[in-house]
Amino acid sequence: METSRQNLSCPVIVPAAGDRVLLAHGEGGRLMRQLIERQIVPAVENEFLKLAGDAAVLPAMRGQLAMTTDSFVVSPLFFPGGDIGSLAVYGTVNDLAMAGARPRWISLAFIIEEGLEIDVLGRVLASIAAAAKRVGVLVVTGDTKVVPRGAADKLFVNTTGIGEFETVVAPGPRALEVGDELIVSGPIGRHGMAVMAAREGIELDPPPQSDSAPLVDAVKALQSAGVRVRAMRDATRGGLGAVLHEWAEASGKTLAIAEHLVPVTPEVRGACELLGLDPIHVANEGTMVLAVPGGEVERAIDVLSSVSETAQAARIGQVVAPGLAQVVVTRGWGQQIPLDEPAGAPLPRIC
Amino acid sequence: METSRQNLSCPVIVPAAGDRVLLAHGEGGRLMRQLIERQIVPAVENEFLKLAGDAAVLPAMRGQLAMTTDSFVVSPLFFPGGDIGSLAVYGTVNDLAMAGARPRWISLAFIIEEGLEIDVLGRVLASIAAAAKRVGVLVVTGDTKVVPRGAADKLFVNTTGIGEFETVVAPGPRALEVGDELIVSGPIGRHGMAVMAAREGIELDPPPQSDSAPLVDAVKALQSAGVRVRAMRDATRGGLGAVLHEWAEASGKTLAIAEHLVPVTPEVRGACELLGLDPIHVANEGTMVLAVPGGEVERAIDVLSSVSETAQAARIGQVVAPGLAQVVVTRGWGQQIPLDEPAGAPLPRIC
Repeated sequence: METSRQNLSCPVIVPAAGDRVLLAHGEGGRLMRQLIERQIVPAVENEFLKLAGDAAVLPAMRGQLAMTTDSFVVSPLFFPGGDIGSLAVYGTVNDLAMAGARPRWISLAFIIEEGLEIDVLGRVLASIAAAAKRVGVLVVTGDTKVVPRGAADKLFVNTTGIGEFETVVAPGPRALEVGDELIVSGPIGRHGMAVMAAREGIELDPPPQSDSAPLVDAVKALQSAGVRVRAMRDATRGGLGAVLHEWAEASGKTLAIAEHLVPVTPEVRGACELLGLDPIHVANEGTMVLAVPGGEVERAIDVLSSVSETAQAARIGQVVAPGLAQVVVTRGWGQQIPLDEPAGAPLPRIC
Repeated sequence: METSRQNLSCPVIVPAAGDRVLLAHGEGGRLMRQLIERQIVPAVENEFLKLAGDAAVLPAMRGQLAMTTDSFVVSPLFFPGGDIGSLAVYGTVNDLAMAGARPRWISLAFIIEEGLEIDVLGRVLASIAAAAKRVGVLVVTGDTKVVPRGAADKLFVNTTGIGEFETVVAPGPRALEVGDELIVSGPIGRHGMAVMAAREGIELDPPPQSDSAPLVDAVKALQSAGVRVRAMRDATRGGLGAVLHEWAEASGKTLAIAEHLVPVTPEVRGACELLGLDPIHVANEGTMVLAVPGGEVERAIDVLSSVSETAQAARIGQVVAPGLAQVVVTRGWGQQIPLDEPAGAPLPRIC
């Protein structure tokens, strides 16, 4: 028999700049192994990583676990202030942090449209790696599927996260009491307007920047300071309005906010006026809503102000006795009016 | 003020048969909440379930954890022997079982193309619920994104699973030793040929049926019987051939199988001959490859034969000293020839 160990000696295909993902990259053969070994593993390497269909083996954890999943379909993939990679990591760790858990492990699953530039995948991977490092989570398992042209739009990312509870869990919106104070951790609507302006080619000077960022340090700071938090929620799709509606529904109380207390950047205000949108309904990706007992509000804002991602936290309203509508907003002219819950948000593919 | 609690009293939109998923279903507003509450929650309800962006809180687990993720992009969504829903659940629990872990929790993330019939989503959900019940895992967290027509093909599903180790973990393919015996747990190539025939409209009588099934009971039976397993792997994309190549690479040994020992159904053999495919490279979704020490092979096959999903397990070859090629197959005419590792599998969107 005259063959050598052919799989070691055969020429390998090294993707060069400008190369594109092929259908064959998703099909379990040599090209897929190369894509994983050359592009994905080096970006996110750690001792637990298992990418090729195997399960990662993770050390035992003492406390309860938190688990959350999100798919990201944002268009465009890159926008002022972020990209689909960091967005996926921050979105997932924020869901864990909102539950009061410390993010530990994430999975990473790509659905790639045939023809995507390998360079684009590389940039997204670099962003994922940087974001994971920033928040101290490890990517431990992954999956890559490639679909034919036209069967997906460029790149979709799913990240699923596991967190560990180290302290008391916030009781959640059912526990809201009349007199609780409502806080947002920063100016609202920045992510939605950044993506929309980038996608539609709306030129604004300066362009709105996404708030895409981890809220992990802010939650840790609140926990360390022993601030009692009734409920926390990152105000993603549906924006501040969606969180207020959910909390009103869960608690059976009315949530009353004052428009002039809600921080909005001039860029977002300008873009929203141009497009006829209310920033209350526009998505955020690094901004949370908190409810704290009345006596805790100043300390909560002090603590949040000391963390870079939540430095502009502000009190925006209160939980009041049920009545009128579920959510009411005191608008500029002093009148309290009910806040609509839109059937759907105005912006598709925002995350 | 004359408003009533408008969000409770406003008319709600109940999807009727024939209704379709709208972009607004994916956007964090009322329609999305309705989709989740009416379609998704009832299908998979359990005490831990958190679907609307919150993280699920799971009880502490004593042992090490296993974590795995998979996206499913199979086309068509329904095929003989399964559908994208059960495929996702079994695919994910099988990855956990292959690591030696007991599947406990899974997440469920949908990317839906605008216009998908709500009825199709309902059927997939019912299949997911039945599959999860069959294997004893709970869906604890989820996510729903809707993208505009043409930005995805009908429905993609990501499932990420967490398992718990209760017994000793199989050492894995690096531990393969010369003299180890190789087993497949059933006839190969059934999933790939079932999907391909369904997609391409190839009429075969009887049509090939997918082997989509959980391997959880088989792994449990091997563990209970104390069978020493060196490595286990479900032979998904790339089929039996891909697993053999990976194991050869990991172990530095040569894997030698005999074609006449590898079980193949007449339907799969016929379809493969028609299409010029080798069943060794065709995907499975409920069939695994095992390596066991020489002395354990009969007991392993006895145990597998007693479990319905692996009743047709068969010894197919051995681990031999490195030489020739990484993987060699004794073909029908008695000659040992190297097995190619295809650059990509012939069938896109098989899972």
